[in-house]
Amino acid sequence: MEFVKNAVGRMIPGEIEGQELKPFAGAFTDDGGGRKRVAPPIPVSKPGQMKICSIREAIERSGLKDGMTISFHHHLRDGDYVVNMVTDEIARMGIKGLTIAPSALFPCHKPLIEHIKKGVITKIEGSMNGPIGNYVSHGGLPKVAVLRTHGGRARAIEDGDLHINVAFLAASSSDDYGNANGVDGPSAFGPMAYGYADAMFADSVVIITDNLVPYPCAPYSIPATHVDSVVVVNRIGDPEKIVSGTTRITRSPTRLLIAKYAAQFIRESGYMKNGFSFQTGAGGISLAVTKILGEFMERDGIKAGFINGGLSTFAVKLFRKGLVGVLYDGQVFDRGVIESFRNDIKHIETPMTMYANYHSKGCLVNKLDVGFLGATEVDVDFNVNCNTHSDGLLLHGIGGHTDVCAGCSLALITIPSYRKRIPVIREKVTTVTTPGETVDAIITERGIAINPQREDLIYRMKNSNLPITTLEELKERVEKITGIPEPPRLKDRIIALIEYRDGTILDVVREVEK
Amino acid sequence: MEFVKNAVGRMIPGEIEGQELKPFAGAFTDDGGGRKRVAPPIPVSKPGQMKICSIREAIERSGLKDGMTISFHHHLRDGDYVVNMVTDEIARMGIKGLTIAPSALFPCHKPLIEHIKKGVITKIEGSMNGPIGNYVSHGGLPKVAVLRTHGGRARAIEDGDLHINVAFLAASSSDDYGNANGVDGPSAFGPMAYGYADAMFADSVVIITDNLVPYPCAPYSIPATHVDSVVVVNRIGDPEKIVSGTTRITRSPTRLLIAKYAAQFIRESGYMKNGFSFQTGAGGISLAVTKILGEFMERDGIKAGFINGGLSTFAVKLFRKGLVGVLYDGQVFDRGVIESFRNDIKHIETPMTMYANYHSKGCLVNKLDVGFLGATEVDVDFNVNCNTHSDGLLLHGIGGHTDVCAGCSLALITIPSYRKRIPVIREKVTTVTTPGETVDAIITERGIAINPQREDLIYRMKNSNLPITTLEELKERVEKITGIPEPPRLKDRIIALIEYRDGTILDVVREVEK
Repeated sequence: MEFVKNAVGRMIPGEIEGQELKPFAGAFTDDGGGRKRVAPPIPVSKPGQMKICSIREAIERSGLKDGMTISFHHHLRDGDYVVNMVTDEIARMGIKGLTIAPSALFPCHKPLIEHIKKGVITKIEGSMNGPIGNYVSHGGLPKVAVLRTHGGRARAIEDGDLHINVAFLAASSSDDYGNANGVDGPSAFGPMAYGYADAMFADSVVIITDNLVPYPCAPYSIPATHVDSVVVVNRIGDPEKIVSGTTRITRSPTRLLIAKYAAQFIRESGYMKNGFSFQTGAGGISLAVTKILGEFMERDGIKAGFINGGLSTFAVKLFRKGLVGVLYDGQVFDRGVIESFRNDIKHIETPMTMYANYHSKGCLVNKLDVGFLGATEVDVDFNVNCNTHSDGLLLHGIGGHTDVCAGCSLALITIPSYRKRIPVIREKVTTVTTPGETVDAIITERGIAINPQREDLIYRMKNSNLPITTLEELKERVEKITGIPEPPRLKDRIIALIEYRDGTILDVVREVEK
Repeated sequence: MEFVKNAVGRMIPGEIEGQELKPFAGAFTDDGGGRKRVAPPIPVSKPGQMKICSIREAIERSGLKDGMTISFHHHLRDGDYVVNMVTDEIARMGIKGLTIAPSALFPCHKPLIEHIKKGVITKIEGSMNGPIGNYVSHGGLPKVAVLRTHGGRARAIEDGDLHINVAFLAASSSDDYGNANGVDGPSAFGPMAYGYADAMFADSVVIITDNLVPYPCAPYSIPATHVDSVVVVNRIGDPEKIVSGTTRITRSPTRLLIAKYAAQFIRESGYMKNGFSFQTGAGGISLAVTKILGEFMERDGIKAGFINGGLSTFAVKLFRKGLVGVLYDGQVFDRGVIESFRNDIKHIETPMTMYANYHSKGCLVNKLDVGFLGATEVDVDFNVNCNTHSDGLLLHGIGGHTDVCAGCSLALITIPSYRKRIPVIREKVTTVTTPGETVDAIITERGIAINPQREDLIYRMKNSNLPITTLEELKERVEKITGIPEPPRLKDRIIALIEYRDGTILDVVREVEK
């Protein structure tokens, strides 16, 4: 296999499993064009169509065959029943060699490992959180997995790089025609933003709901125009676990200090001004930054134009106080957010193309001022790893990390300088998830490093009382405490590709030795 | 030219201007498939994109060239300034031979005639109300016009039969990125449903607004992901004429009687039951039927699942009273509706694909119980003409007429038996807009004729006190009053095609002798 060094210095094979790979060439080198988007087959809509059927019938109607690709969204997170329900039925039907392309997999999807072992599933294109990532890391998946960003997944679907034959989309409410939402019913989970591209471009679309309502289901996130079958089941998920993001602000003094530094950095950087915007997430640090930023805004009399995110009640609180004009919502982390999303016309669903598709005419990450995001590792080139741990295990998805860093004006990585005596600042990250050229500052409890590219920011912050330093110095200080860890013990075999949002390959992930 | 007789007995040429024509073969004979939808070019979205520019710059950026196709929506109706503004600029730039593909043209667009005379515009694909239709009828347009239904236009765009190079979409509110709506600002007009397919599938999309708002414009009807340029102008339309449908219930005793018969017919037919649905329009009879039906519903304790339409305050009143669960809204006929549309989550925008695209997986006309619609003529085969007058002049568009008749369970045509001493019930309609096989009953002040196909309905109504009769008898009675009018004096030249919602040709319209 021939390898080429890409723009972040990683060696990328020229092709894999017969598929040509394009090495990452820089965050904004791709100019689109060159070909057209994918186009689904032309369907027909006659009166009297009956879409309600069983899972088995929906699979049969869809024409699912060996070797095809199925997809799911992950709005039900670790409470999801739908992935297992559908794959179990497919396994019973004897269909083999499928690619599964979920927006993300969670620990609750561990039963998929049995389907992989039996050859029902041979490839994964999607994020893997926890046990399945671990299994894939140890070489359990026959084919090479592909991990994409939220925006990159939408791009791949729209461009035709990820051709979904059948999308199975959980809905907390649907009518018999397939108008579906995630805001009504006992299993309400919020927007259906992760499944929107699937619904628009899959050959066949199956809505799976536990709450059939009289036609028409309103509001809708997925329109009946794009739905082939509607399956009613007992439960689509465990309501207790459906909205299961971290919803509590960190109590760790280290992490609180990081959050304080980040909020202060945002304030001093000049980006916290009327009409500004930021992206929040679910982590404990992220929630703390949101809260502190909200306090600053209130004190300084500043109103934000919008917050984007996975949203928590903290963001909704700022919105309700009038400190934020619009909430852009891709997913919901706690139940308090659902009501606001359902009822407030300024709290808006953001399908992933709207959020972050590089191959659109304008995605909202480009309009973001500030993002604050986590990581497993960073390196002295500001490259960020969110996928693997330092032992090489692939345990996390990408989410919108790479998208936000590419689009926003101030991309901050908020991380403790070490975890469990393993340093977080490395010479080279184990895996490049987000290229350093799109990262503006690393904020740790021991100091803040600004990307040397950002001379403007360095100048702006030069009289700050914040502990501004360099990554090299931070790295050295931390290594005095932790030592330099052993490199991961890896085999040659590539088990996953990290795809950049433009479809080029940023890095490869290799099998971990037992 | 070879002609073939189609399923409604009209002679259709095998091809026109080098384009092969498929004759109409029956309302539901097309099963879709066979090819894929059209796919637009892959765009790119980088931070720092500036979309705001002048009309001239937007046209230049779009790459508009001689012979291309431009489109517009007609939500501003007879108050629209945008069509003239843009075509004037295009004319000044010296671009020629364009096809204009508006969802509809109104009397205010009369200046287009000058552009036709000068060769700027050589073809129209879209509805023509009034003077432009009259001009085209007299042979003024070099190429053959194409008229489509609302659903058929969306189908043609999505299937690639109508390839739009540049869509110019009026918005009453937009941000600098192109998130646009029709509900805010001084020129608010309601949904942007007619322009949605244009935005999704045109190569280039220009938003034209007179109300630029800070990013993000929320709610939005058109997302920034599909917008290339944003043009800010002084005024997109005349607010007094923007929502200019007939908003007054007819006072004519004849028309009131027709409305009363229609409402009574719906009630007795058994379709007026809990959860039923109906389509309303703007005409005086239609408003009267809505009002009387609402009174019946209140009296009988019946609630409708949804009303679909072009909506007026009459429909909103029923909705507010709790007599209707959901309002499906494709366009707004008076200002009272806009507020409800903007603020009520059960008052929902229906892009034309959702409304009536036969090449979707399910459009809402198929879920309609009852439609009551007007006509210029009907014939003894229940074929309906909405396009031409008995003198052959092409003065009206199709709208959703054909779509609703095809989809709904009870399609009623509510018409006076004659107008200005010209009989409305003819041996053969001048132009077939809607095939008789999709029409269930003709309701006139002199009697009601049920389509003989609908044996169930004839049986159901056999003990009714309503004046049930046959079309032949009605025709004879009316002709005793009016006489039989002269046939229209037509030339051989075909000036327009009436396209059925599946893309086949239902009829041709010929040039009228001076």
